[in-house]
Parts: sequence; C-alpha cells; structure tokens
Amino acid sequence: MDPVLLLAIPLGMGFLGLGLVFALYWLVRRVEPGTERMREIASFIEQGADAFLKREFKTISYFIIIIAALLLVALWPRWQIAFGFVYGAVCSLIGTFIGMKAAVKANVRTANLARDSAGKAFVLAFRGGAVMGLTIPALNLVGISSMCLLVGLGSGNLDAVGLLVGFGFGASLSALFAQLGGGIYTKAADVGADLVGKVEAGIPEDDPRNPAVIADLVGDNVGDCAGRGADLFESNADNLICMMIVAVAFVVAMDALGHPMAPEVAFMFVVFPLLGRSFDVLATIVGVLVARPLKSPVKALNISILTTSAVLATCFYFLASLMGYVQLFFCALLGMLSAIVLALAVQYYTGMGKKPVVETARAAQMGAAINIITGLSYGLESTAIPLMGVAAVLAASYFIMYPVGGSVAGLYGIAATALGITSMTGIIQSADTFGPIVDNADGIAEMSGVKDEVGEALDELDAVGNITKAITKGYAMGCAIITSAIMLFAYICEAAKYTHGGVLKSLHDLAGHLVAVEPTFIAAAVLGAITPFLFSALAIRAVGRGAYKMVEEVRRQFKEIPGILEGEAKPDYARCVDISTKYALREMVAPTLIGLVMPIAVGLLLGPWALTAFLLSCTITGAVLATFMFNTGATWDNAKKYIEYGHFGGKGTDTHKASVIGDTVGDPLKDTAGPSLHILIKLVSIVSITLLPLFIAYAII
Amino acid sequence: MDPVLLLAIPLGMGFLGLGLVFALYWLVRRVEPGTERMREIASFIEQGADAFLKREFKTISYFIIIIAALLLVALWPRWQIAFGFVYGAVCSLIGTFIGMKAAVKANVRTANLARDSAGKAFVLAFRGGAVMGLTIPALNLVGISSMCLLVGLGSGNLDAVGLLVGFGFGASLSALFAQLGGGIYTKAADVGADLVGKVEAGIPEDDPRNPAVIADLVGDNVGDCAGRGADLFESNADNLICMMIVAVAFVVAMDALGHPMAPEVAFMFVVFPLLGRSFDVLATIVGVLVARPLKSPVKALNISILTTSAVLATCFYFLASLMGYVQLFFCALLGMLSAIVLALAVQYYTGMGKKPVVETARAAQMGAAINIITGLSYGLESTAIPLMGVAAVLAASYFIMYPVGGSVAGLYGIAATALGITSMTGIIQSADTFGPIVDNADGIAEMSGVKDEVGEALDELDAVGNITKAITKGYAMGCAIITSAIMLFAYICEAAKYTHGGVLKSLHDLAGHLVAVEPTFIAAAVLGAITPFLFSALAIRAVGRGAYKMVEEVRRQFKEIPGILEGEAKPDYARCVDISTKYALREMVAPTLIGLVMPIAVGLLLGPWALTAFLLSCTITGAVLATFMFNTGATWDNAKKYIEYGHFGGKGTDTHKASVIGDTVGDPLKDTAGPSLHILIKLVSIVSITLLPLFIAYAII
Repeated sequence: MDPVLLLAIPLGMGFLGLGLVFALYWLVRRVEPGTERMREIASFIEQGADAFLKREFKTISYFIIIIAALLLVALWPRWQIAFGFVYGAVCSLIGTFIGMKAAVKANVRTANLARDSAGKAFVLAFRGGAVMGLTIPALNLVGISSMCLLVGLGSGNLDAVGLLVGFGFGASLSALFAQLGGGIYTKAADVGADLVGKVEAGIPEDDPRNPAVIADLVGDNVGDCAGRGADLFESNADNLICMMIVAVAFVVAMDALGHPMAPEVAFMFVVFPLLGRSFDVLATIVGVLVARPLKSPVKALNISILTTSAVLATCFYFLASLMGYVQLFFCALLGMLSAIVLALAVQYYTGMGKKPVVETARAAQMGAAINIITGLSYGLESTAIPLMGVAAVLAASYFIMYPVGGSVAGLYGIAATALGITSMTGIIQSADTFGPIVDNADGIAEMSGVKDEVGEALDELDAVGNITKAITKGYAMGCAIITSAIMLFAYICEAAKYTHGGVLKSLHDLAGHLVAVEPTFIAAAVLGAITPFLFSALAIRAVGRGAYKMVEEVRRQFKEIPGILEGEAKPDYARCVDISTKYALREMVAPTLIGLVMPIAVGLLLGPWALTAFLLSCTITGAVLATFMFNTGATWDNAKKYIEYGHFGGKGTDTHKASVIGDTVGDPLKDTAGPSLHILIKLVSIVSITLLPLFIAYAII
Repeated sequence: MDPVLLLAIPLGMGFLGLGLVFALYWLVRRVEPGTERMREIASFIEQGADAFLKREFKTISYFIIIIAALLLVALWPRWQIAFGFVYGAVCSLIGTFIGMKAAVKANVRTANLARDSAGKAFVLAFRGGAVMGLTIPALNLVGISSMCLLVGLGSGNLDAVGLLVGFGFGASLSALFAQLGGGIYTKAADVGADLVGKVEAGIPEDDPRNPAVIADLVGDNVGDCAGRGADLFESNADNLICMMIVAVAFVVAMDALGHPMAPEVAFMFVVFPLLGRSFDVLATIVGVLVARPLKSPVKALNISILTTSAVLATCFYFLASLMGYVQLFFCALLGMLSAIVLALAVQYYTGMGKKPVVETARAAQMGAAINIITGLSYGLESTAIPLMGVAAVLAASYFIMYPVGGSVAGLYGIAATALGITSMTGIIQSADTFGPIVDNADGIAEMSGVKDEVGEALDELDAVGNITKAITKGYAMGCAIITSAIMLFAYICEAAKYTHGGVLKSLHDLAGHLVAVEPTFIAAAVLGAITPFLFSALAIRAVGRGAYKMVEEVRRQFKEIPGILEGEAKPDYARCVDISTKYALREMVAPTLIGLVMPIAVGLLLGPWALTAFLLSCTITGAVLATFMFNTGATWDNAKKYIEYGHFGGKGTDTHKASVIGDTVGDPLKDTAGPSLHILIKLVSIVSITLLPLFIAYAII
C-alpha cells in the first residue's frame, strides 16, 4: 500500500475518534443539570477549574515559547522538532481541556440522574469519563499521523522518524505541568479542607460550611482527571514515537544481518504502532457503547473492559498475522496481561480488607505514629512484585522477538509490549475519570441538600469509583514504566547512529561505550538515582506549603466570619480556590526545571553514553519510588476508610483520628509526587533523545 | 623488609591497641559508681544489655555454624574462607561485647562524677567511649594480620589475599545482626515508652514510673553503641580486605602494562591498608589522651578530633612518600575531607536552628501531618549533596591515581580514599559512644533522684552528645558508601580473574561483559533497586510490631498495677525488656535472609556479570534510601527538640504533640532501617565476592 494511504488510516481513525468525542460530549450536555442550587454549586466548580486551567496554560505557554525557540536554534535546520514540540504540547492541553470540561459538565448531571436511578447515573458518568478516555488515543493519532506526513514519512523516508521526537517532548512537558500543578492544587485543597474541617471542627467531608470545599472539588477535576489524562496522553505519544524509532533501527539491523525486508514490510513495521493505536479508538468506542444501566455497576464496568480487551486482542492478532509475525501479537498480549498483574498487585497492597490495609488500620489503635510506620513498611514492600513483574514481562517479550533478528528485534518486541499495555488507555481512562465525576456528584448532592434523594445510588457508584481508581493506578504505573523502558531503548538506538556507521546489529556492538563500572558511568548513575528524590522533595514540599496556607485561611475564616459553623454565614470559597491556584502554579516550576536540567547537564558534562546510565538509574529508581509512594498513600487512605466502615471503633474515635493523619501524610505521596514521577522518568528520556545531537557535538567527556 | 616482619607491625599495633583498651577499661572501672539507688538502676541496665547480647549471640551462632559448614563444603579445599568467616564474626562479637560492657560501666560513673564536675564527667564518658573506639581498629588489625599469616601471605604469595574474604563476610553478618537486632530493640522500646509515657500519660522522658524506661536505656546501648560499633568494624574490615584484593589486581595490571614492580614494592602496596590502619590505633590513643576537662566540652572534643586527624595525615604523608607515591596521601586526605563534607551536610539538614528543622517545627503548628510532610520533603532533598559529594570524591581519587597505571591504578586510588575515611573510625566512634553513655547517665540520675545535683553538667554534655551523633551519622554513612564502592570494584577485580587470563589491564577489558542495557543486566539492576526497599520494609515493620506490643504492655501495666503513676508502685521493667528482646531476635532474621539470598539468586540465575549490575544498583539505591531515612528521622527528631526549647509554643502544646508523632515515625527510619541499610549494601558485596567461584561454575545464564 502507498505510504501516504497507510498513514491516512490512523489519521482518519483519529478524526473519527474526535467526532465521537463531540458526540459523547453532546450526549452529556443534553441531560438536565438539576435544581438551581445544584447548578449554582456546579458553576462554582466549573469556574474554579476554568480559572485554574487558564492560568496554568498561561504559565505553560511561556515555557513552551522559550523552549521552542531554543530548540529551533539548537537543532537548526531540523525546525520540525521545534514545531512538533509546540504541536505536542498544544494537543495535550486541548485534550486535557476537553476531557475536563466534559467531566465538569457531567458531575452535576450525574447527581441529578442519581435522584432517579443509579444505573442511568452510571452510564452518564461513564460517558462523561469516556470523553477524556477517547480524546487521548484520538488526538494522539491525529497529532502523530499528521506529524508523520509533515516530516515526509509519506514518501517512505524512514529516517524522518527521528524528527517526531519534538511532539513527545511537548506532550511530556505539558503532562508534567498538568500532573504536578493539578497534583499540588488538589492536595493543598484536600489536606487543608480535611485538617481543619474534619479533624479540628469535626464537620463531615464535602460540607458547605467548609471554606475549602469548593477548592477540594475543583481539585478532583484538575488533579485526578486532567493530570492523569495528560500523563496517559504522554505515555501514548512517547510510546508511539519511540516504537517507530526502534522500528527503523530494527529494519536497518535486519538489513545488516543479511535478512533485508521488502520496503512495504519495513514500512509496516514502522507504522505498526499507529495502526495498533487505531484499534484503541475502535475498541474504546465499542467498550463505551456496551455499557448498560445494569443492576450492578461493577459488572457493567467489567463487561466494558473485557469487551474492549477482546476487540483489541483480536485486532492485534489479525494485524500481526497479516504481517507474518504473530510474535508481535504475543508481545502485545503480554503488555495487556501485565496491566492485569499490576492491577492485582495494587489491589492486594491497597485493597480494602486485605492484610496490609487491615494491619495498618489495626496499628492506628496505638496512635498515628505506629499507623504511619506500618503503612510505610507495606508500601516499601509493595515495590517488589510490580517491578519484578515488569522486568519479567520486558525480558519475556525481548526473548519472544529475539529469534527474528537478535537483540534489536528483541527491542522491537519490548516496544510491542508497551504498545499492548498503552492500547487499553481509552477504556481505562474512561473508567478512571468516572471516579472524580461521581465524587463531585456526591459533593454537589451533599452541598445542595439533595443527598437524601441520591444517597444510596451515589454511594454505590462511589464504591465502583474506588475500584476503578485502584485499577487505573496500577495501569498508569505500568504504562509509565514500560514506556520509559522503551524510551531508553529508543535513546540507545538513536545514539548508536553516531557509531558503527549508524548500524546497530546487536546490543553487544555497544560494549565499548557502555562499560557499567567506569567512573563517569557510576557518577551518572548516582545522579540518576538522586533526581527522583530531589524532584519528589520539591513536589511534596509544595503541597506542604500550600496546605499550610490553606489551613491558616480556613482557620481564619472560622474565627473571623461569625456564623459559618452554624451554617448561617457563607464562607469565602474563592479565597481558598485562589490559594490552591497560586501555590500550584508557583511550585510546579522548580521540579520541572530539575527534570529538564539534570539530563542536559549529564549529557553535556559526562557525555551521551554516561547519560544512558543516568536514564537507566533514574528510570529504575523513579519507578520504585513512585510505586512506593502510590501504594503507601493508598494503603493509609484505605486503612482510614476501613476504620470509617466501623472497624476498630469506627468514626469519631482516637483510632480514626490517628488514621486521618496517616491518610493526610499519604495525600501528596499518592496524588502529587507519585504520579508526577511517572512523568519525570519519561521526560528525562524524551529530553535526552531530542537533544542527543547536542550531546554528541558538545559533550565534554 | 621480610613479608612476615612487615605483617608483624600491624599485628603488634593491634595487640598494643588491645592492651590500651584494657587500660582504659580499668581507668573507667576504678571510678566510684555513686549511691546505692544509682548502682541498682545501673545494674538493671547492665543485666538487660547482657541478657540481650547473650541471646543475640546465641541466635547468631546458629547462623554462623550453618553458613560456615556450607562455605566449607561449597568452597572446598579453600577451608580458610570458612575459618575466616567464623573468625571475623567472633572478632566482631567480641569487639561489640567489650565496647558495650565499658559503656555500661561508664554510664553510672559518669552520672556520679557529674555531681562533682562536668569536665571530669566528660573525660570519663569519652574514655568509656574510647574503649569501643579503640577496640575496632585494634581487633581489625589482630584479626586480619593473623589471617594474612594463616593464608600464607607471609611467604609473599599475593594470590592468598582472595582467601581473606571470609573474615569480611563474618564481620558483615555479625554487624547486620547487631545493627538490626539492636535497632529493632531500641526503637520498639523507645517508641513504646514515648507513645504511652510522654503522649498519653504526660510523664517526662526517663521517668521511673514508665515501665518501658529500662528497656529504653538498654536500647541506647545495644542499638546506638553496639550496633554502630559493629557497623564500623565491618566497614573497616571490608575496607582492608577489598583494598588488598584491588592492590593485587593493580600489581598484576602494572606488570601486564609493562611497568613491573619490584616484589618489595608490590608487597608494600598490598599491606599499605594494614599499615594505614595501624596509624588509626596510634592516632586514636593520642586523641583520647589529649582530651582534658576543659570548660567547654565541645572545644575539648574538637581538639581531640583535630589532633587525631593531624597525626593520621602526617603518618599517611610519610608512608606515601616512603613508597614514592605521594598521590596515595592525597587520596587518603580526600577520604578524610569527605567525612567533613558529609558531616556538614548532615548538620545542615538535621541541625538545630537550621532551615529544614525550623520549617519542619513550624509546620507542626498545622498538625502532625504537615509536620511529617515537610520533614519528609527535606529528607528526600537531603540525599543530593552527600551522594554527589561521594561520587565526586570517588571520581577525583580515581583520576589522581589514573596516570600511575590506568584505570586499575585508579581503583587503587579509590581504595586509598576509602582507607582515609575509615581511618578516623577510632576517634569518631569514641565520640559517638560518648553519646549513649551520657544519655544513660542522665537517665540514671533522673531515676535515682540525683538529677538536681547533676542537672547542668549532664545537660551540657548531652548537647555535646547531640553534636557527636550528627557527626558520626554522616561519618558512618560515608564509610559505608565509600567502602561499598571499593567492594564493588574488588568484586570486579576478582571476577576478571576468570577472563583475560586473569589479567585486568583496564576496565575497558570488561566491555563485552558489562553491556549496561542487556535485558539480564536491566533485570538484575531492577532486583538490586528493590532489595533495599524490601529490606527496609521488614526492618520498619519489625519496629512497628514490637512497639505495638510495647504500647499494649505499658498501657496494661498502667491499668492493672494500681499506684504506678503516683509513684507508689514499681512497674514491671523486666517484661518490657523481654518484649524488646523477643521482637528484636525474632524479626532480625527475615531481613538478613534477604541480604543473603538476593545476591546468591541473581549470581546463580543471571550470572556473575549481571550480578555486577545488581550490586551497583543495590549500592546506589541503598545509599540514597539510607541517607533519606537517616536525615528525615533526624530532622523530625530535632524539630521536636526545637519546639521543646520553647519555640512555636514549646512543650505541652498541640504543636509539640504533633512533633512527637513525627519524631516517632522517624525512629525506625533513622535508627533501624537507615543504619542497617549501610550494612546491607556491604553484605551483598562481600557475599558476592565470597561465592564468586560458585557463580562462575554454576550460573545458568
């Protein structure tokens, strides 16, 4: 098939996906938003979220302009990289914006439908979430396919693939800002609201008397929804681009090994990831449409996810068979299975009623300190299974493809596994965004006084939200780690272009460049291990500072505005929203700079090969640290909920108070630093790949 | 000089050191131990410590016997390794026992002298600490020099050096048990005592009404004193042995490079570490003897440490000049200077009145959660400077020696740096053990009602104790990290014996074996990164469990024994001592097994070269994690103390209570998992070096 026609398939699928996104959006909008009070509160949330996003986009745009200008100069004449950078960043922002807008529209409508039936509310919330879910693969396809045409891949020039990296870099930077900014926002608000509201004043969650409650609800959207969406958009984009880079290296290696491919076959290997991503759009649509208002929402959700998986697996099987390399199907399947393993591991370590959560809750009887110590120890332990699982999956997919053409073919196998796991993004992100929508719906119902009407229905959906959250966490973690592994390999393939006449026949060719124990290598590895720690330090401190100010403000309002606690005076919600916004925007800059400066410094000072050690070390340490933070935070959170369900004394006891402290400590770990680390490990790789020519030309060592 | 005569020098210095140890012990013993009540309480502590050590030694001995038998069979006919293993373990245990015995004798006498003058109490406590300080290098010298004679190094056979590793392995295993067991013991007691005593019952620290108070005082000895002593004994032993291994590789490399050394010169390079360690004995004695009862104990201490450093530097200079390689002097000096840098970094991040501590204390005003979050973020940040400093020092010493004979000479330079930093062990450990002695003296004075008489004097010394603690922490961290780096290189030198005809001319010779990005290499690196997390998880959980039981017991006694809180009934101290002992012994086994099983599994499954990746990754991750845990815990601790000094409301306020929770969470991090990780990273290396022949013979990949 003609290359341009072949590229038109993913482009067309991308546009089809976007069309469906607008259809879903319309389906959500046309539902009635409920009573006047409900609409008023929903508009507070919407205004807060809009205001935050606008200011966030403004801050990001400065960065984008400056970096794009630098890229243009530094990498001239390859202007496509600077263009792709802006394009990738803008796509990510648009995707985030559409997805969040839909979520904000869906929350009040879900609350309203819940007054009628839980099933209908479920379908609406799920469709609202699917806007975000479907936007990701659709915009990915539109963006990267059009970039492919722009750089000239349509004429069959495989080398042009290297020009795509700018798009990934842009998506990475946007994602880091969205996840960090959103993460700081939501946790400053959440911690502030809980500490004064729940612990000091003793009023329930989502109580309208709490001045920080609107900021908290806004935070659910900008943190959980927009943040994770941007993270997965980036994983998807990086994944496609890096797989295409590895594909070209694979084609060249096969040629050098004496098994040259026909040009059409070679091109199929290169566009394989784009075709695979097209399946994602298709499968997600099917998955969303099969969602029915069943009696058990969990069952309905399971049916959706399983249907999507089955469609995906079938598509992969046919494409791989068509290409004559059924091994690629097995690799993709391994990726999809690893998502399940990770979800199960997360479920065990953070699941309600499982040993870690119960023991952590039990420890709260002896005070907050022992509660925290116990959760910490389970969180540290929880890193073992997921990381060993990922390592095993990577090794397995490597060895599946190894017989085809040695170690470079093995790398292509790993890329196919990454494609497999990220291909489930559409449906999983739909289920994930469902969570904050229901959470917000509950908050709106609580604040507008219709809680009695919706109580049972939304509680049921909230339970579903908790399950999807656990699944998505394990999933996003897996996507990030496996994607960053293939990014590391893409970096190596690109770096190898500057040695051996540009041909990498086998990883062993690099032996002379990658002696693991040379001092520059070890120094780079040390810097790589420090980076995630330094990054997390700043992210966590940002939440501490924001929450400090928030506690101060809420305490002030309780003291200075008489009648708040009696429900007679209205708190000043806007000031709390403003504090969260200010801290989020101010504090997201420094960690981002670490992610940019560290790999550049190592590349220029210690050279492009030592940078490999930095990337490897940063990726592994970052993955372990992120897993630890994610799971520890979730364990404390669920230990608190476990107590709230009536165990070990239940709500109102000292045991419960102790568990709230643990939960609060975990908030910035699980919702700010942990997920942001996923982006960091991808950002350092994409920065390195993009700037590799500079390191080759100007490195000191 | 004849090899045997040359080996007789360190052996003789070792015996001289031991003689002085007994002289110091005698000087301590002849001081009056005070009132009858003081003696009674001191005897409680002594009995508790003795009982714990006896039971700990028993548990260890099972392990020693089993492992020695396995080593004998597996490495036959090299029986010297199994013998050295037992010998090293026994030396470590004896050293720990002598040092702790002296500390326990010194505490009550220090309290007694303090009734008279702070200066005299200072000198006594310092001498009591010097027993531990001097025992370490002295027993090191006796043990390793006699091992050298035993394996036949006296006949000039350099290959025999490889047979010394068993001694290091034995010292490692003993150290891990001592540090882990002691760490679990002391923190289970401390946390338990604080949580019920200080927080719930509101009685002050070291109050005789608290049933866990004796266990807490015993814990200071078995944790801080015996644990750290064993850690430094191991760093010293591993350091000597691994430097000798690298020395032999260096001699062989010079030969192969066409710059053969005369046999005497070659032998001097090999025994250089033993001669260097001899200086340590000398310099420590001088340092201890110059300690005078000055008005300012801090000044007296500084004079001691500076004198010791000057003596050491002079000795190194003369020896290096004598050998004609003055570069070795600079390397050793770099090692000594890096101790200062590390101590300063620790001082900044955990020092009273410095920004991290003040901000963490300030955050406590907003509750325990924000206090913990803030401390956590500074702790994460605090890993950057020390680790980057260590990497820079290692690289610098490598490049100082590089011109002499390429990269293997560079490794010898790194070994000299390690020798430099560990050579200060004698004086630093003396100052460190001073801490628990004064702490115990204060406790004894409090409990026996003579606190009024000694108040000011012991408070002053306690302040000194806090300074020495911070210094020693940075120092022990530096010793462990730098030692483990040289152990990694010793492993590589040994592994290289099985390739290239046993000659490693340059690290580049290993290019084909150490391709950093091969899948087995990455899998091994992932396992290496997980190991410290898994290990810490178990260590921290052990404290959580022990403390849980302790809280239960103390609460029970307060409830069931009427009149305790009024001071009318005596609490049952023995039961609390028993709980700590039981949990410490039971829970130290599982983490130890991780340290033994992981490197063996990787070596056998993924092979000896992938094991290098495991070691590198485990060392770096372990070092970063240990630094994080150490500093985070110390920051919370000092934030609490800062509040107790009257800031942000002072004692008794909610702010203070919040800070106590942070302090308690930090206890197992800074005193159990953190310091035990230092031993873990050395243990995995020495196990790997010892069992290398097995991996070469039986590895699957």
